[in-house]
Amino acid sequence: MKHLLDTQALAHRDALAILDTAEEMTAVSSREVKKLPTLRGRTVVNLFFEDSTRTRISFEAAAKRLSADVMNFSAKGSSVSKGESLKDTVQTLDAMGADAIVIRHSASGAAAQLAASDWTDAAVVNAGDGTHEHPTQALLDALTLRRGWSRAHGENPRGRNLAGMRVLIVGDIVHSRVARSNVWLLRTLGAEVHLAAPATLLPYGAETWPVTIHYSLDEALREAPDAVMMLRVQAERMGGAFFPTAAEYTRRWGLTDERLALVEQLRLGATDSPALILHPGPMNRGVEISAAAADSPQSRILDQVAHGVAVRMAVLHLLLSQRQPDGSLDE
Amino acid sequence: MKHLLDTQALAHRDALAILDTAEEMTAVSSREVKKLPTLRGRTVVNLFFEDSTRTRISFEAAAKRLSADVMNFSAKGSSVSKGESLKDTVQTLDAMGADAIVIRHSASGAAAQLAASDWTDAAVVNAGDGTHEHPTQALLDALTLRRGWSRAHGENPRGRNLAGMRVLIVGDIVHSRVARSNVWLLRTLGAEVHLAAPATLLPYGAETWPVTIHYSLDEALREAPDAVMMLRVQAERMGGAFFPTAAEYTRRWGLTDERLALVEQLRLGATDSPALILHPGPMNRGVEISAAAADSPQSRILDQVAHGVAVRMAVLHLLLSQRQPDGSLDE
Amino acid sequence: MKHLLDTQALAHRDALAILDTAEEMTAVSSREVKKLPTLRGRTVVNLFFEDSTRTRISFEAAAKRLSADVMNFSAKGSSVSKGESLKDTVQTLDAMGADAIVIRHSASGAAAQLAASDWTDAAVVNAGDGTHEHPTQALLDALTLRRGWSRAHGENPRGRNLAGMRVLIVGDIVHSRVARSNVWLLRTLGAEVHLAAPATLLPYGAETWPVTIHYSLDEALREAPDAVMMLRVQAERMGGAFFPTAAEYTRRWGLTDERLALVEQLRLGATDSPALILHPGPMNRGVEISAAAADSPQSRILDQVAHGVAVRMAVLHLLLSQRQPDGSLDE
Repeated sequence: MKHLLDTQALAHRDALAILDTAEEMTAVSSREVKKLPTLRGRTVVNLFFEDSTRTRISFEAAAKRLSADVMNFSAKGSSVSKGESLKDTVQTLDAMGADAIVIRHSASGAAAQLAASDWTDAAVVNAGDGTHEHPTQALLDALTLRRGWSRAHGENPRGRNLAGMRVLIVGDIVHSRVARSNVWLLRTLGAEVHLAAPATLLPYGAETWPVTIHYSLDEALREAPDAVMMLRVQAERMGGAFFPTAAEYTRRWGLTDERLALVEQLRLGATDSPALILHPGPMNRGVEISAAAADSPQSRILDQVAHGVAVRMAVLHLLLSQRQPDGSLDE
Repeated sequence: MKHLLDTQALAHRDALAILDTAEEMTAVSSREVKKLPTLRGRTVVNLFFEDSTRTRISFEAAAKRLSADVMNFSAKGSSVSKGESLKDTVQTLDAMGADAIVIRHSASGAAAQLAASDWTDAAVVNAGDGTHEHPTQALLDALTLRRGWSRAHGENPRGRNLAGMRVLIVGDIVHSRVARSNVWLLRTLGAEVHLAAPATLLPYGAETWPVTIHYSLDEALREAPDAVMMLRVQAERMGGAFFPTAAEYTRRWGLTDERLALVEQLRLGATDSPALILHPGPMNRGVEISAAAADSPQSRILDQVAHGVAVRMAVLHLLLSQRQPDGSLDE
Repeated sequence: MKHLLDTQALAHRDALAILDTAEEMTAVSSREVKKLPTLRGRTVVNLFFEDSTRTRISFEAAAKRLSADVMNFSAKGSSVSKGESLKDTVQTLDAMGADAIVIRHSASGAAAQLAASDWTDAAVVNAGDGTHEHPTQALLDALTLRRGWSRAHGENPRGRNLAGMRVLIVGDIVHSRVARSNVWLLRTLGAEVHLAAPATLLPYGAETWPVTIHYSLDEALREAPDAVMMLRVQAERMGGAFFPTAAEYTRRWGLTDERLALVEQLRLGATDSPALILHPGPMNRGVEISAAAADSPQSRILDQVAHGVAVRMAVLHLLLSQRQPDGSLDE
């Protein structure tokens, strides 16, 4: 693995290697001194063309816990805003000694373009490209799901995939790179994926994905999913072409207190463990998810954040620790 | 001490512990290698909902000298600007492994709300909340005053409080969290506190504070204070409901060259040492303080800045060095 | 050497010391662990009154590779924007323990003013002041030129200057601090300097500089320079008092594919090695330089970026490693 660009092409073996390494990294976080010397002297550059403090700070925490130096390059007020091309920006960062470039960009395919180019020897990590993918988000979701799933079955999570697990993704699929990355990774890991969304928030071609589509959340919940992943909806998508109003959205597609009770009740017959609730954040409490659902015992939303640091440590570790300064890999 | 939220509730013993530790930290600053390994592997997050480069950079310097990792989370362009609640932001930082959260917020009580919540196990340090408090500023002022007061009396500052010292605070009290934090801390440390301000810049209820109020700066100066603390005035408070014009403010409430001479002259009869001059910065030279006063030998304004780093090192050290990862304290 | 303010007053001996130290620093960059412990415990502050992510990040990378702590102080949203004077800002940074202040400012002479003042004991590094100088840019250009020139002559670059080399600087000279710093440094190092620019983009008094001026790029290229340094043109200078249009600028002053071919052809008779092509970045591809020229084998544009980190490591190392906390130098 030289780069992490998407989950669609991520091999089952590589996905498990990341998840298993991330398991070890979560142990580091509970020690008094949380630092590993692994990446001392390596430089990780956060190249963010879109604002995202949460994701940037998570990568920053991950890199610092591995003792790497971190530099934040935000497009605002930089040479990019003076019209510099992506190529020149990346070549500049490479020449300054970047070992890994974590890129967030509004254009789908930006990370892949970087990795395919000869602009840099650095490892490229996609931190979100347009509406395409956000692979570390899907990996942290998978780590969270695997831990919950294993615990429910009394098993050690290491080495396991998600075979047999049923995961329901709800909401604004069309604009969500998180949803796309999850669909591919969950399938690779053997889970059964369900989507629930209004037709206007489903992308063209979704019917060809390896998923079951529901046009009613209540119907989808009746299939008793093992995990429900609520997606963030953007206010600007309400009251326009995509959906009438936020209140109407909540009524039909929100994880309300009533639906939370329904989920619990439906599971009760089938299994001992409640359905896990996930959300990539930041949440619109009261819109796509109620406060009670977000803070319920079965919510894994804060675990997701903690797992985000662990997964990013794992990814940076795996990409950089076997890599020579010229970008070649130790075998 | 689990958090530092205000000076109003700060015990005399804890205040002295911070000041005495800060004395040791100032010694670190004069060594060639200014770093202590104390907080290696700990993460300090600066969570700033209001811009304040001076305060942010002072906490950053303090944390780095203790070898902590520092992450800056500014509300602009972050999930906060997308409508995320304070609760979700803080829980996110906690899940990422923050050991201390240094918070500046426009709402009075924000830091206390954090500390009282179960959102985080991190130590909470108030770096300014609305017009309520800014405790590390008062502590650095106290360190500065104690050093000057002890030197004037030929005594070792360690272990001492400010009993017998007379401190005059001048200017925009109503909008100043610095003034409030100073009033409480100075009283705790035994100093006699005087306020001088126009009636429109005094808060409702100030007459119940343990202070002497003067409605004329010249009268207040005639009481021969041992220290004069000038507060910053904001241009937007001039020419409106609070005060007619900046020039008029300077004439009546500024530490002008004439008043500087008056202060020196008045002290001359009473004691050998001149009155100390303090200002929390940034200064409006020529408005609330003249250039000559700011740069005079009795000015301690730059000492305040240096003591700011030492006090913040002391606070972070005391809050974090005995703290377990789950937030409990070593006894 | 206590500060680095300009190249005009930089002694030949000091320039060589920086270049030779930078040669050693480039070797550090190729090691697996790129860090030196030289400046552990020292604090470098980037004090940027103008945005420049490239330069800021290059100094940041340099300081971190020497294990210094780095703090970024940008004028936006800081006390500076509240009207604080340069003096007070700098005294504040000094009091916080800055060992080196890297300053970029829109006013010519800002760095020199700092160094001449008693505001700080810190080493001052000019990172660009108005239209005056940008000395580290000229030094990284010189490192790049020296490496190319030595290689072409089969010699070790260490200890050598640029005697006999002919360097052509093209474009917007009047607004370019890069051009000024290069003119002085190149002359000190013994190179022969040519300028090619339209009369409206040449500064008043340029005819008194130790350079040869050409009012036609094609004529200048016929003199077979050993290196061609293209300057960035700003869009806002096109279509106004300085130059008719960008297309017209390219036609007359751009390093187009045709001119690239001309340069190569002219050199062919004279020497084995092609003329080196430099650009300080960020480039306007298609305006002052064609994509083919920027990416040609004789382009040294990416070497310049890498040498920027090495030169800045050398400057910080030389300024700080022999310096005591009070600003005095070890002899």
